[in-house]
Amino acid sequence: MSHAGKKRKLDKTRQDRLYFDSYSDVTIHEDMIADHVRTNTYRTAIFSNSESIKGKVVLDVGAGTGVLSIFCAQAGAKKVYAVEACSIAEQAVEIVKQNNVEEIVEIIRGTVETVELPEKVDVIVSEWMGYALLHESMLNSVLFARDKWLKPGGVILPSRAELFITPISDPVVEDRLYFWYTVKDRYGVDMSSMSDFAQKCIKNSDITVNTVAMEDVLSHPARFAELDLYLVTVEELRAVKGRFTCESFGSAAVNAFCVYFTVTFPCPEKAESLVLSTCPFNPETHWKQAVLYLDSPVEVVQDTPITGEVSMFPSEDGSRHICIHVDYSIGEEKRQSKTFSIPDWTSDPQS
Amino acid sequence: MSHAGKKRKLDKTRQDRLYFDSYSDVTIHEDMIADHVRTNTYRTAIFSNSESIKGKVVLDVGAGTGVLSIFCAQAGAKKVYAVEACSIAEQAVEIVKQNNVEEIVEIIRGTVETVELPEKVDVIVSEWMGYALLHESMLNSVLFARDKWLKPGGVILPSRAELFITPISDPVVEDRLYFWYTVKDRYGVDMSSMSDFAQKCIKNSDITVNTVAMEDVLSHPARFAELDLYLVTVEELRAVKGRFTCESFGSAAVNAFCVYFTVTFPCPEKAESLVLSTCPFNPETHWKQAVLYLDSPVEVVQDTPITGEVSMFPSEDGSRHICIHVDYSIGEEKRQSKTFSIPDWTSDPQS
Repeated sequence: MSHAGKKRKLDKTRQDRLYFDSYSDVTIHEDMIADHVRTNTYRTAIFSNSESIKGKVVLDVGAGTGVLSIFCAQAGAKKVYAVEACSIAEQAVEIVKQNNVEEIVEIIRGTVETVELPEKVDVIVSEWMGYALLHESMLNSVLFARDKWLKPGGVILPSRAELFITPISDPVVEDRLYFWYTVKDRYGVDMSSMSDFAQKCIKNSDITVNTVAMEDVLSHPARFAELDLYLVTVEELRAVKGRFTCESFGSAAVNAFCVYFTVTFPCPEKAESLVLSTCPFNPETHWKQAVLYLDSPVEVVQDTPITGEVSMFPSEDGSRHICIHVDYSIGEEKRQSKTFSIPDWTSDPQS
Repeated sequence: MSHAGKKRKLDKTRQDRLYFDSYSDVTIHEDMIADHVRTNTYRTAIFSNSESIKGKVVLDVGAGTGVLSIFCAQAGAKKVYAVEACSIAEQAVEIVKQNNVEEIVEIIRGTVETVELPEKVDVIVSEWMGYALLHESMLNSVLFARDKWLKPGGVILPSRAELFITPISDPVVEDRLYFWYTVKDRYGVDMSSMSDFAQKCIKNSDITVNTVAMEDVLSHPARFAELDLYLVTVEELRAVKGRFTCESFGSAAVNAFCVYFTVTFPCPEKAESLVLSTCPFNPETHWKQAVLYLDSPVEVVQDTPITGEVSMFPSEDGSRHICIHVDYSIGEEKRQSKTFSIPDWTSDPQS
C-alpha cells in the first residue's frame, strides 16, 4: 500500500532503535528457528566446515538467540564471540548456559561496529540475510567485522550470495481487481469503478513479501548479481545491479517480477558447496520472495524474451530499507521502468 | 506484542489523520464489501425497513464507498446524505454516479461533527463497529449525529449492540510455547528456556484480533453489556461494563477470554429483529473475535463456574484505541484481573 506522503522521517538514533528493538520479540526468533531450511542448512554447513572451526576462534555477527554460536561450539570452536545488539542477547546468555558451552560462547551485547574483541578471529559466521537479501543492510555489519576482526586467510560462512529475478503471473492480484466487477451480482450495486482505484493501491511501488507459487513462475530464473563475501565492499553494496534475460515458458500475462536469493557455504568435506535457496521451486523459507507488481499485465507467448536490468540500493531516507529499480522490456513492448521499496511495516516493531 | 515503551505520543491532529487515512486504501474496503455477513445483513435490514425509508431523508455516518447509502436509495429514500471524512469519498462519488442515484445520494466529504446538512433526517444508518465493537470510537460520531440531526421519532439502523464474553482454550498459543522444547530434538540445541520469554511476549496485554474456532469455546457465551442506540450517551461509552457468569462445558485449560459483539436491526415486516453476529459459532466476519490471553492457563472441569466483570474504556492516551479490563474468578482460584489494549498497528496506515 502506498503511503508515500506519510512516511515518517525518523532521526538515525530512533531508526536504529526501531531496527534493533524489532528483533526482541519472540515471534521473529520463532519464525527463524522454525525455518528448517535456514537453521538446518546453517547447522549442516557449520558441521561440514568443522576442519576450519575446530580449535579456532569464531565471531557470530548478529547472534540472536545464539543458536549458530552453539553449533560452532559443538563443531569444536575454541572460542565464539556472539555479538548481538538487541535485548534477545539476554535470552542467548541463558541458552548458552543451558547447553553447557558458557566457557566457549561469550555473548557480547552491542553492535559489531562498536564492540571490542580481545583478539582477531579465524571464522565469521552470520545469518545476515533480509527480505530481498539486502533489506536492513545487515551485510554491511558483516563486511565491517570482516575488515576489522577477520585474520588474513580466515573463513566467512556463508561465503557467497546470489540474486535472481523471474517474471511471474500472480492470479491472486488479478482476482482482487476482478472482485469489484462481481459486487453487482452479489448485492445489486455496481462497484466496478473501484477496480481502477484497487489497481493503484495494489500494484503500487511497494515490494510485497509473499510466497510465489511454483506454477506462477513464467521462466527459468535469471541470476543478475553475485556477491563474494571475501571481496565485496560496503561501497559496492550502495548499488548492486545486473542485467537479465528470460524466455517465457508459454502463453501467460506477466504481472510481476519475483526477486529471490541464495547463499552458498563451502563444503570441504564433500568437495562441493551447500546452498541455502529461497527460490520458489524450493521448499518455503521465512524469507518467502520479493514480489514487484507491474502497473499493468503484459501478454507473452512461448519464448517471448523478457530482458532488463535490476538495480538494488538502500533507500535515500537513511533507513535500512532496500529499493529495487527494474528497467525491463517484454517482447516487442517498449522499455519500461519502475522503482520499488519495502514499506515501513517490516522493520517497525508495531507490525 | 508489547511495546509499551515505544508507543508514539501523537498529537490529536496527527491521530485523526492516521485514523482517517487508514480507510483510504482499497484493502479495508475490499474486506468490508467481501464480508457477506456484514454487507448482506445491512442490505436485508435496509430493505426490511423500507417502510421507514421510503420517501424519507437518511444520513449515512462514515459512508465509505457509499454502498449502504445506495441500498437506502434503492429502498426508496428521497435523499441520502453520505458523510465520509476519508479520501475514499472520491470513489464513492463515482460509484453513486455509476448506479444512477446521484439525484438522491449526496456524498459529503468531512466529519459528521463538522459538516452542515440542509435539513434534519428521518433515518440514520451507519456501519460503525470496530474490533471488540468499540475500537476506534466511531459510535461517538453516530451519537453526535443522532443528537444533532435525527428528527424526534427517527430511526437508527442498527438500533442495539450487545457485548459477550466466553472463556476459551486456544491450542495454538500453547503449541507456540511448547515449540521451544522441541528444538533440542530438531537441531541438538536446548532452547527450552525461551518458553518463559515466549510466554511473556505472547500472553501479553495486547488484544489479539483473531478467529476463534468453535471447538475452542469452553462455555455458553455470557452477555455483559447492551447499548440502546436511541438512549446511550457518549459519557456512558467512557465505561461500558457488566458482570458475567459462565460454566465450563467440560475439562479443559482456560487460557484466554474471547470478546465479541452483535448488533440488531428492527425488522418490522416480519415483526422480529435481524442480528449481525460476530459470535465464533456463526459464520466468520472480518471483525473476527477479540482474544485476551491470561498469564497462565487454569484447569477447569465440567460446570466449573467462571465469573467476573468486564469493563471497556477508551485508552487514556487520547487515541481511538479501546482497552478491556477483565476481573475474573475461575472455580476456586483467587480473583485475578488484567487490562488489555489494542496495539498500534490496527489503526496505523503502515500496517
